[in-house]
Amino acid sequence: MTPALTTAAVPQATRLAQLHRYWLATNYLGAAQLYLRDNFLLERPLQAADIKPRLLGHWGTQPGLNMVYAHLNRLVQDTEASLLLVTGPGHGAPAILANLFLEGTLGEVDPQYSLNRAGLEQLIGQFSWPGGLPSHLVPGTPGQIQEGGELGYCLAHAYGAALDNPDLIVACVVGDGEAETGPLAAAWHSNKYLNPATSGAVLPILHVNGYKLSGPTIFGRMSDEELHHLFTGYGYQVRFVSGSEPHQVHAAMWQALDWAHAEIRRIQEHARLGLLDGVPAWPILILQTPKGWTCPFTVDGQAIENTFHAHQLPVADPAGQPSQLPILEAWLRSYRPQDLCSPLTGALCEEMLSGCPAGDHRLGRNPHANGGQLLVPLKLPNFSDYGVMVPAPGGVTAAATHKLATFLRDVFRRNEDARNFRVVCPDETTSNRMTTLFEATQRAWLGPLHETDEYLSPDGRVMEILSEHTCQGWLEGYLLTGRHGVFGCYEAFIPLVDSMLNQYAKWLKVSKEVPWRQPLASLNYLLTSHVWRQDHNGYTHQVPSFLNAVAAKKSSVARVYLPPDANCLLAVMDHCLRSRDYINLIVASKSPQPQWLGIEAARDHCKRGISAWHWAGNESSSEPHPHPDLVLACAGDVPTTETIAAAALIKQHLPVLRLRVVNVVDLLALMAPDAHPHGLPEATFLGLFSADAPVIFAFHGYPSLIHELLHHRPAPARFHVRGYMEEGRTTTPFDMLVINNMSRYQLVMAALDRITAQPNSPALAQFCQLKLTEHAAYIREHGIDMPEVRCE
Amino acid sequence: MTPALTTAAVPQATRLAQLHRYWLATNYLGAAQLYLRDNFLLERPLQAADIKPRLLGHWGTQPGLNMVYAHLNRLVQDTEASLLLVTGPGHGAPAILANLFLEGTLGEVDPQYSLNRAGLEQLIGQFSWPGGLPSHLVPGTPGQIQEGGELGYCLAHAYGAALDNPDLIVACVVGDGEAETGPLAAAWHSNKYLNPATSGAVLPILHVNGYKLSGPTIFGRMSDEELHHLFTGYGYQVRFVSGSEPHQVHAAMWQALDWAHAEIRRIQEHARLGLLDGVPAWPILILQTPKGWTCPFTVDGQAIENTFHAHQLPVADPAGQPSQLPILEAWLRSYRPQDLCSPLTGALCEEMLSGCPAGDHRLGRNPHANGGQLLVPLKLPNFSDYGVMVPAPGGVTAAATHKLATFLRDVFRRNEDARNFRVVCPDETTSNRMTTLFEATQRAWLGPLHETDEYLSPDGRVMEILSEHTCQGWLEGYLLTGRHGVFGCYEAFIPLVDSMLNQYAKWLKVSKEVPWRQPLASLNYLLTSHVWRQDHNGYTHQVPSFLNAVAAKKSSVARVYLPPDANCLLAVMDHCLRSRDYINLIVASKSPQPQWLGIEAARDHCKRGISAWHWAGNESSSEPHPHPDLVLACAGDVPTTETIAAAALIKQHLPVLRLRVVNVVDLLALMAPDAHPHGLPEATFLGLFSADAPVIFAFHGYPSLIHELLHHRPAPARFHVRGYMEEGRTTTPFDMLVINNMSRYQLVMAALDRITAQPNSPALAQFCQLKLTEHAAYIREHGIDMPEVRCE
Repeated sequence: MTPALTTAAVPQATRLAQLHRYWLATNYLGAAQLYLRDNFLLERPLQAADIKPRLLGHWGTQPGLNMVYAHLNRLVQDTEASLLLVTGPGHGAPAILANLFLEGTLGEVDPQYSLNRAGLEQLIGQFSWPGGLPSHLVPGTPGQIQEGGELGYCLAHAYGAALDNPDLIVACVVGDGEAETGPLAAAWHSNKYLNPATSGAVLPILHVNGYKLSGPTIFGRMSDEELHHLFTGYGYQVRFVSGSEPHQVHAAMWQALDWAHAEIRRIQEHARLGLLDGVPAWPILILQTPKGWTCPFTVDGQAIENTFHAHQLPVADPAGQPSQLPILEAWLRSYRPQDLCSPLTGALCEEMLSGCPAGDHRLGRNPHANGGQLLVPLKLPNFSDYGVMVPAPGGVTAAATHKLATFLRDVFRRNEDARNFRVVCPDETTSNRMTTLFEATQRAWLGPLHETDEYLSPDGRVMEILSEHTCQGWLEGYLLTGRHGVFGCYEAFIPLVDSMLNQYAKWLKVSKEVPWRQPLASLNYLLTSHVWRQDHNGYTHQVPSFLNAVAAKKSSVARVYLPPDANCLLAVMDHCLRSRDYINLIVASKSPQPQWLGIEAARDHCKRGISAWHWAGNESSSEPHPHPDLVLACAGDVPTTETIAAAALIKQHLPVLRLRVVNVVDLLALMAPDAHPHGLPEATFLGLFSADAPVIFAFHGYPSLIHELLHHRPAPARFHVRGYMEEGRTTTPFDMLVINNMSRYQLVMAALDRITAQPNSPALAQFCQLKLTEHAAYIREHGIDMPEVRCE
Repeated sequence: MTPALTTAAVPQATRLAQLHRYWLATNYLGAAQLYLRDNFLLERPLQAADIKPRLLGHWGTQPGLNMVYAHLNRLVQDTEASLLLVTGPGHGAPAILANLFLEGTLGEVDPQYSLNRAGLEQLIGQFSWPGGLPSHLVPGTPGQIQEGGELGYCLAHAYGAALDNPDLIVACVVGDGEAETGPLAAAWHSNKYLNPATSGAVLPILHVNGYKLSGPTIFGRMSDEELHHLFTGYGYQVRFVSGSEPHQVHAAMWQALDWAHAEIRRIQEHARLGLLDGVPAWPILILQTPKGWTCPFTVDGQAIENTFHAHQLPVADPAGQPSQLPILEAWLRSYRPQDLCSPLTGALCEEMLSGCPAGDHRLGRNPHANGGQLLVPLKLPNFSDYGVMVPAPGGVTAAATHKLATFLRDVFRRNEDARNFRVVCPDETTSNRMTTLFEATQRAWLGPLHETDEYLSPDGRVMEILSEHTCQGWLEGYLLTGRHGVFGCYEAFIPLVDSMLNQYAKWLKVSKEVPWRQPLASLNYLLTSHVWRQDHNGYTHQVPSFLNAVAAKKSSVARVYLPPDANCLLAVMDHCLRSRDYINLIVASKSPQPQWLGIEAARDHCKRGISAWHWAGNESSSEPHPHPDLVLACAGDVPTTETIAAAALIKQHLPVLRLRVVNVVDLLALMAPDAHPHGLPEATFLGLFSADAPVIFAFHGYPSLIHELLHHRPAPARFHVRGYMEEGRTTTPFDMLVINNMSRYQLVMAALDRITAQPNSPALAQFCQLKLTEHAAYIREHGIDMPEVRCE
């Protein structure tokens, strides 16, 4: 007998009564978690000693979350839908924990919270207790794919989770505070990208309780007419569920969810019959209930329910204020804690629990919430087959991202059936010279098509929206539910998601400490149109700060790669797509650049992370000298080109100098091994950089980052780093190097300052100075770089 | 005779014809800038040699911008409105430059672009030429308050500019690409905060040309009905101006602007009669014209006009492709360049210019765009009057932000008439213990009021919206137009505006290099609810990365302060409010903390930036020892408390040790003087830290930042930095220190590892270890910290 049949046999009125009883129970458990350290079922009069010494947590959103949860349970029972709940107001954790406890999933991941009286007492007592349950949703909470600590991302996460999961419905509770944020406001447009034929559905539930931390919300004071207009404009079908009388809201919520579910299935069936026509008008529910619903109306003369005072603790100090203890007690007792457990056995009341779905239908067990367990590794083509032939170092020119696109095109093709790989990008795939991708797939687009459009399709797997926030949110949701992806972005604008990176890195770091969470595919950034080749767009487009942002993350999750050419980019991307649970940052140019390594040499170089390129210096590769006179180091494609050119000048003019060139592709390998797992062993580090030679280091980003990474290395003061010094304008590529003091000529002059002078040194310095002067005159007259330094 | 009378005498048909002619001229100049290095007026057949060798710039948005500019000129002529134009699509610079040239304002700031034939040739030739005019709007462009390089901020900037400028209308062109971004989507709600009685108006013009870089825009494919719903929902009155036939669009645009202006004045008059009732329905124009309007319809068989191919260069390679040169020539000639200048005198055609307003009514001369010239310094109360009495170091406890609020309250009061100070905050003023502000002002709010609301008023000067992006955008707009402000924010979530900080820092850095730009009030961040006191909200709320972000900015604009107590916070804020053209980052706790310095000592300490606190060590203040055995350094309020406590333990157990305590309030003073203007001279630095003593440094943020700042200082390896190591959870304040290895006991143990052992050393180490163990047991049992370490 299916659950649907079981429950269908029960009259609706009975089920509504049961739902209400369940709702009271979750409200009780949620409130009790905030306050009680003892007397968990109020079996004796409440005393000050029963109150936790430090009250932490939020009440205001809980009754609404509990209402949603109870009715989603009902919907699942009746429809057997696979339903994932994404909770924007993650600070409403006690509500979600109460539901997870009652459905049994909390106890399944942590037996101290098993579904019995002892578990119930643990739940209440351990909430916000040091070492216990955190005050927000966390990776250790079953059924979750986000914390909701930093607000704004739930809706994009929900859409990301629904992609390519045709049987999944993602219910997404958006708080009316969170709805004010930019990332959330942008994410409503995700409906233009979700194909009902091949993906699942998102059911947004905008929870308007009217208040945020200390004042009204914008959405709480917009008229219903305005709300209706707004979401109609976004392309949704709007339905309000409003009220403060619980039974009336129960009835309305039941009907609204039936309607929403029917609409979702209607849209899907229509599309799956091949009748898709534009962006479907998916349902949205607007749930309007009082902030802190059912808490005390006033406390000591202060209005509480339905005001912002209900956001955290409606009763602020029950242990300290004698007037407040009875108020708290009366409030808690209004939820009838005596009905929770059998007075005889102590078991949880079965009838109350009858509204919870079973097995994996329980929201806390939706398999998509632990995406790693669903992860299917990508079938990757052999990246060596996509390599550039490099007859001699620098002998050929290629655009790295253009070469990579052919490889990624075939990643799409090989995994077409698995439907588990996507690229997100803020409208830059073509600009980034990756149009080859469109030989295998298109850009997702459900809107109307015009005859002149290119590469658009409802089933496209490249997701382009001019919102880095939405791109990141989609990809996070997609990865968290067990799929793979790449975020391609202009380097300058990826800092838009700095804070999302912070939060995702935190989620990853903690997830790895949760035993039941399975590893996820890594979050791969491919940054191109980078600082050194944004000479044309000017100063606003020159921002290499994301390197700093990723490098600052916990070493257990952060990886940074600066492939110097196309073959190295292929090797790095292959590695990143196979890796798990990392944030991989790759920076590579879309502009044609000299190529240095053949594909096998690239594979070897990337595996080492850092190598000496003896051919670029003047040592024998078999017998590197322990004491080179000078090391030229580089990280990044443009800095590598300049370094090789500087080395050539030095070799030509000062042939007896022992010169070594070291290239860094795995940036964090510079760190000490106890600071980062990729950190080179000390001996290897010294073997590359020697113990005392001066090092002129040309770096893609801000020089101070290299200083920071090298802090624990021996004699770091001998590293002289050149990089981006926040000097920029609309100019030529080579002039960008000159104004930031990193051109080949300036690298040579920096080297001359740090080595023992040789007979030719003054002449070389003069030569470099002359070249700089000539070049300045040349670009002023011709508008372009001198041919000898041009890369494309 | 006023301009209004002058123009009113001319028949509308004549003026429309003149407007069209002007529009053709701006289109010509815009297109010519992209292509021509010679033959600027096409006085001879176009040749490949006339084409610039490197084509940089964007055409797609230009005709629409030119249409808007021409008609705003007309509106200003007819109404004498003070009109500031904020251009979201800043990459449409050639269009704006063409208009600025023709109205004469470009030549007024740079005579090489004077309003004559030579100036015209310079304009065309110097665009996107190295050393010439950049490809985007920049601080050197007159009339601008933003670059538009990173998209998303124009609307918030426009609202910020309109605040407290009752006579100003800010027209804001929002591109339909930019409209997809989150920050832009959030900013539409700014209408709920703009008081028509006391502030100016914003006229948004959503320019829907249908395409972004390489595909359609969302707004370009939404139906008119959806667009109407969406903006009605946001609370605006919508009017469409649509078409591809220029004369029809001219007529519609004229009428639409008359309508919008009349609506603005109606709303303002109503409100200024005291009849304000809720959020007014301000007008918005939706301008729908083809992408790249009037450029070639096809080139070599490829559709161009009204496709994304018109975004940058409609004719991609006229010098290289013989087929393209005639297409370019015909296109350029369609704008009748022969009408631009008199063939006899070479002067610009006067009739064409007759549509430009005069003097400061020209958009490029709006005084608000060079806010520094309008800046009125704040009248500041004497901050010493707000100090905390500190009978002895640590002898009293206070919440720093709470004390500061009284000072800021009086800043509001003293500048009430000037109306030039605001605080922006994402709904946290109360949480940050700054409710005292509301004794002087309220929170801005035009929406409906409920009886239980607190501190809301249409004229409130505290701007709270749950969108850090909007807060930052408003404040930037407010500062750029010559006013003052503070951004109060939880430390964890300020990274949401990392990228806005990047862009604003770039604007500031370049502005300071533009001679006619006058200094602005600094952008002041007050970060509170900081990492060490977000123990209750848990790991997501613990992010000190903004320190890194600001420290990485150009040293000419970046300042970072970590006041250790309330009196220091007062001194720092006083300084920041007086400063100009900086980004000042202040981090201070809202939680009660021990107070260390009296107000005069605080003033002195903050002036020095870094001082030794001899009372906390065991030296005589008059004769500090040149060779202390140990230095305990600290930056940040919580680290300072721990350091003082660690020092006390060391003094007690190891009394003969020469111990010094150094407190850092001005973080960037740690940098070398050639790296930052605040960098302490080497001798001062050595006087504080000595040349060789081990330094245990307790830092508010990530330890690596200190390593980075100290890189160029002598013997940096002796600095052992403790700080936030990305360890966090919901726990107690002291446990936060313990899990990040920065508690007083761990600081003592770190010190013991680095100094010559003394007889009592093992006992002290054991004592510290014992204390840690005791504490762990205590918090597990009691849920709170042991009384002896508790701060509140």
